[in-house]
Amino acid sequence: MDEAPRIAIDAMGGDGGPATIIAGAAQARDRDSSLRLTFTGDETVIRAEMARFPQLADSIVVHCDDVITGDDKPSQAIRRTKSSSMGAAILAVKAGEAAAALSAGNTGALMAIAKLSLRTMHGIDRPALAALMPTLGDNDLVMLDLGANTDCDARNLVEFAVMGAAYSRLALGIESPRVRLLNIGTEELKGTGELKEAAAMLRQQTGGAWRFDGFIEADRLGRGEADVIVSDGFSGNIALKSIEGTARFITDLLRRAFSSSLRSKAGFILSRPAFALLRHHLDPNNHNGAVFLGLNGLVVKSHGGADEKGIANAIAVAAKIAREDLTRRITDDLEDFRSHAVQTEGVA
Amino acid sequence: MDEAPRIAIDAMGGDGGPATIIAGAAQARDRDSSLRLTFTGDETVIRAEMARFPQLADSIVVHCDDVITGDDKPSQAIRRTKSSSMGAAILAVKAGEAAAALSAGNTGALMAIAKLSLRTMHGIDRPALAALMPTLGDNDLVMLDLGANTDCDARNLVEFAVMGAAYSRLALGIESPRVRLLNIGTEELKGTGELKEAAAMLRQQTGGAWRFDGFIEADRLGRGEADVIVSDGFSGNIALKSIEGTARFITDLLRRAFSSSLRSKAGFILSRPAFALLRHHLDPNNHNGAVFLGLNGLVVKSHGGADEKGIANAIAVAAKIAREDLTRRITDDLEDFRSHAVQTEGVA
Repeated sequence: MDEAPRIAIDAMGGDGGPATIIAGAAQARDRDSSLRLTFTGDETVIRAEMARFPQLADSIVVHCDDVITGDDKPSQAIRRTKSSSMGAAILAVKAGEAAAALSAGNTGALMAIAKLSLRTMHGIDRPALAALMPTLGDNDLVMLDLGANTDCDARNLVEFAVMGAAYSRLALGIESPRVRLLNIGTEELKGTGELKEAAAMLRQQTGGAWRFDGFIEADRLGRGEADVIVSDGFSGNIALKSIEGTARFITDLLRRAFSSSLRSKAGFILSRPAFALLRHHLDPNNHNGAVFLGLNGLVVKSHGGADEKGIANAIAVAAKIAREDLTRRITDDLEDFRSHAVQTEGVA
Repeated sequence: MDEAPRIAIDAMGGDGGPATIIAGAAQARDRDSSLRLTFTGDETVIRAEMARFPQLADSIVVHCDDVITGDDKPSQAIRRTKSSSMGAAILAVKAGEAAAALSAGNTGALMAIAKLSLRTMHGIDRPALAALMPTLGDNDLVMLDLGANTDCDARNLVEFAVMGAAYSRLALGIESPRVRLLNIGTEELKGTGELKEAAAMLRQQTGGAWRFDGFIEADRLGRGEADVIVSDGFSGNIALKSIEGTARFITDLLRRAFSSSLRSKAGFILSRPAFALLRHHLDPNNHNGAVFLGLNGLVVKSHGGADEKGIANAIAVAAKIAREDLTRRITDDLEDFRSHAVQTEGVA
């Protein structure tokens, strides 16, 4: 793999528009000067923003007239793959002109364009969306699928486990990640038929680059008891959004509580360092950059509401998975898993 | 309905055991002296605890040798319906000796015994577990199903909507509750086939005692945008536990942050009233008492970890739904919904 990967960035996506994207890219370039960047979108707007950052002067700009918005349906977006900034970033990956694509735009549209343009990799039935989440343990955890697949069968869940473990080893450096299936109980009899079947298949796995630790309930996600959490895209999305919503709910409550009296306001000022620590832990910008796993090409999704730091973090994620060749790692782990599974079947 | 309902209480369930249950019952009796109580379980232990509370002297005690534990499977528990304290509380409802049953024990066992002993009410395919949750709006919301049914079809979801709305009107006094289906997007095309079909059926409803407001995503649950949230039991359980886990995650982070320096500790002391306000909002004891909807008899589930106040709150829930005859209200609303649905079909 090239030591200096090129990242194709949809400059038009996200709530902050090109100003935030380009400023975030400049931050990423400051952190890692070997990065090479391609921006897709309105060339005039992009060049105007780039002018503020000399460190971006050598970036490539691919002009596109069209921008896919949050209201566009995936089926509409697909037809505008060639004309849109989002599509152009993904096509740059397909053409081998970039090692990874990044967009902060419409998730459903990005997923649809990426799947259709890059196709699912050999040996994988369906791609999945994976993200890192904070825990009270020593490491972040990898959670997938976060919404790419509403319905999943046991085979899909097993493939998500293999891909999630590969991503955990690469992104977090965990040698043998503990993989768990999200369920509504930890006993073998709990949950849907798909979950029980997937658990049975995963339990057969011996050796290999990760281990299966059974089911986990949603109230234990942040406790540091797992490195990879696997679920269908519906449940994963419900869990992720429940977590995000609750974090906002509590910070809103805190704000109300601390403005309820003069004494509390004084307490807030005195406690500012403690709140800064809390904010650092909960700021989604620090965990920005969800990865599509299982495609013939790397695609990273940024939060739409990400700030410059968040965009820079998502670009760093894209650069890391490109440098360390995530697609190859998934292929290897998949072969390893299947060879072990076949051996076990042979013995039984 | 009798103005002074009798509540049958499983005195042996829950993490705090009989001491917490009986003390909670005493609190409930202090708040509402018309309440009549029956305790099921080890008579010697129960009488010893009761001796501390003169206000419980007129309570009935039904002795049972057997206690269902957290490890017992529902299938095992069912066989011990007659011998166990949990089963005896439900059988008291079945026999008409109590207006509602309450247990803080094993949820799966309680559900199984309640379903088999009381049977599902006429016109309802499956019972559901519903609970109240805090919001940033003016009212709590009703959420169901929280785990009684792993797989649900559209008809189940529609029935949950009717039952949840009836419970919302009774418990919260909301005249025309806004009902929403939990989904991973708000567009009509999002989600599973069951959700889309249920939404189509609910959209037909005109007039009646509630209104359908479409889909809601899990990050909007606490924003005061809905009064009743309907989902299958798997998704509902994932959402509920994600919320509980995140609340604990953040309070743990807060604790760490505020003990990180002397300055923060001083800030914490100054901010104590603000934290008390936060704790009041987040304390699950203030929302204790989940209700099984759709059975021929009223059953309330307390959190296993509830304290005395939590138990007293759950008893108050049981008394309220008994006094206001929740089962009759659900029957009426169901007939009302079906007559409207039939009219609409006739017009089409």
